[in-house]
Amino acid sequence: MKDYDIYELGDVVLQSQKTLRNCQLAYKTYGKLNEAKDNVIIYPTWYSGQHYENEWLIGPGMALDPEEYFIIIPNMLGNGLSTSPSNTAAPYNASRFPNITAYDNVRVQHRLVTEKFGITKIKLVTGWSMGALQTYHWGCLYPDMVERILPFQGSAKCSRHNFVFLEGAKAALQADAAFKDGWYGDTKPDKGLRAFGRVYAGWGFSQTFYRQKLDIDTMGYASLEDFLVGFWEGLFLERDPNNLLTMLWTWQNGDISNNDVFKGDLKAALGAIKAKAVVMPASTDLYFPPEDNVLEVECMPNAELRVVDTVWGHFAGGPGTSPADIKVLDEALRELLAS
Amino acid sequence: MKDYDIYELGDVVLQSQKTLRNCQLAYKTYGKLNEAKDNVIIYPTWYSGQHYENEWLIGPGMALDPEEYFIIIPNMLGNGLSTSPSNTAAPYNASRFPNITAYDNVRVQHRLVTEKFGITKIKLVTGWSMGALQTYHWGCLYPDMVERILPFQGSAKCSRHNFVFLEGAKAALQADAAFKDGWYGDTKPDKGLRAFGRVYAGWGFSQTFYRQKLDIDTMGYASLEDFLVGFWEGLFLERDPNNLLTMLWTWQNGDISNNDVFKGDLKAALGAIKAKAVVMPASTDLYFPPEDNVLEVECMPNAELRVVDTVWGHFAGGPGTSPADIKVLDEALRELLAS
Repeated sequence: MKDYDIYELGDVVLQSQKTLRNCQLAYKTYGKLNEAKDNVIIYPTWYSGQHYENEWLIGPGMALDPEEYFIIIPNMLGNGLSTSPSNTAAPYNASRFPNITAYDNVRVQHRLVTEKFGITKIKLVTGWSMGALQTYHWGCLYPDMVERILPFQGSAKCSRHNFVFLEGAKAALQADAAFKDGWYGDTKPDKGLRAFGRVYAGWGFSQTFYRQKLDIDTMGYASLEDFLVGFWEGLFLERDPNNLLTMLWTWQNGDISNNDVFKGDLKAALGAIKAKAVVMPASTDLYFPPEDNVLEVECMPNAELRVVDTVWGHFAGGPGTSPADIKVLDEALRELLAS
Repeated sequence: MKDYDIYELGDVVLQSQKTLRNCQLAYKTYGKLNEAKDNVIIYPTWYSGQHYENEWLIGPGMALDPEEYFIIIPNMLGNGLSTSPSNTAAPYNASRFPNITAYDNVRVQHRLVTEKFGITKIKLVTGWSMGALQTYHWGCLYPDMVERILPFQGSAKCSRHNFVFLEGAKAALQADAAFKDGWYGDTKPDKGLRAFGRVYAGWGFSQTFYRQKLDIDTMGYASLEDFLVGFWEGLFLERDPNNLLTMLWTWQNGDISNNDVFKGDLKAALGAIKAKAVVMPASTDLYFPPEDNVLEVECMPNAELRVVDTVWGHFAGGPGTSPADIKVLDEALRELLAS
């Protein structure tokens, strides 16, 4: 049984000048929109994740408390629930699915929030990783609407190194002949998906995480190989390859200034963010190193950089993986919401 | 025309209890062995490299000066010149080529040095990356023979994270069906090799290297894609896949204590190194982070840790890539040799 809703967007013309016909935005809400419509939190999804994989940060007594806030999780285009290669009919199916930008994503999310719910003020936008990329977009595209942002372990623009890491994962997936340039139909390229997961494994957690054997001691895997298969191969085997590549393109081309509003001027786009911002990189993140955010925060008028001191690497803010880091994040969200 | 020599080792029984029949060690020497036989430097090769790819650190006026020293570069087993999958006849060819340890490598190198040249003292062993792994082995297996070691950007034991990075590269190569479990004959799995290179690309250089566009500004590539194809795909396309996997196994299973001498006691193996040691990690190395060496140096009786402050990541000590780091390394070698 479906635990989410669909917002029918009609035909959406993308930045690429292609059209997603009868485009659908899948979303889930938590809590109730109050009468003043001023208790809204937007919490976009991360790479390959779906709304339920964001839920670990929501709960009674947590900062994102559905008894207090109306929390909307919009599923990213391409993630398998919103319009995606895996659920689109010909001719824009499979490898012909158009490139989607984070700008495209946030524009349709804005339509949901305004057209469907009539919301004009957003208390907070927050998200992990690609969720942070969307958070930055919200901040600069709708500066008079968004009051607070807390992007964690993500950036406003994909760095060149981050781009390269993703090229490696992509090449591993596409090296599998069963991928068939995307025309694999019902027979997914399992070998390529498993390779994708193995490539990702070295990037997701830090050197020290592995040195301390937290895969075994904290996450409960029996061995390193058990972790590589059980966690990493498992994470991506259940995803659709064309969906993964759609979102990967979105990620690689993430740049809040790459649109008609800011015309490639990243500093201007960062400077346009009026929201009170707390930016939280993880000290050991291998693909969103704190340096990314240091440079960004310098250009943001109302932002604080708060580096999470952790050995969990990118997964400091991962879906419920690191209890200590969740607490730090939850506290920061609580503090920002109260300010 | 062949620019190296072959030492015939006869039948070599490996740690795996398999036998390399008519095993050959390819090596090249530079300079002359003096009468006292006390001017010897051993300089093992790095992952996938062959002797000529070590030569950037050798030259008149440099620390490794062939006018003063007798420098031996032994080619690693599996590197295509010494006995390797690519040059071994059935039945131990291709995927049946046995697993080789760094211990196996250094044992046959020791035979070359003692049997062929009658050398009893070694002034210095040095090497980059897997060359450093072999350097550590020389130090602990022949402590009364080796007077100095300078391992750079490498470790005495492959860390779990480093193991995982290599799993990713391996999985990318093997995802190509043309790999045929190693039985690809004369038709190499080009797609897999290119994917292998692309995975490697994110690891070889640091985030800051890419941020500063040193691939373009210093290395002279026209664009990031030019660098990925020209440097990274090019580097591995010319290698043999089974050779790459043989050396990858050697690397993943690198551990100076994994032998009858030290029986898995890493601290004892590190403690056995009598040589004066200067250990030089690179501050931004993503797979041999300085932390590896910090822990090692604590257990070594006569070692100094000297972190190279660089944005070049693992390639600080790469084959001639970073001029400033070469200078630092050359100076350290000169100083150590003079001490």
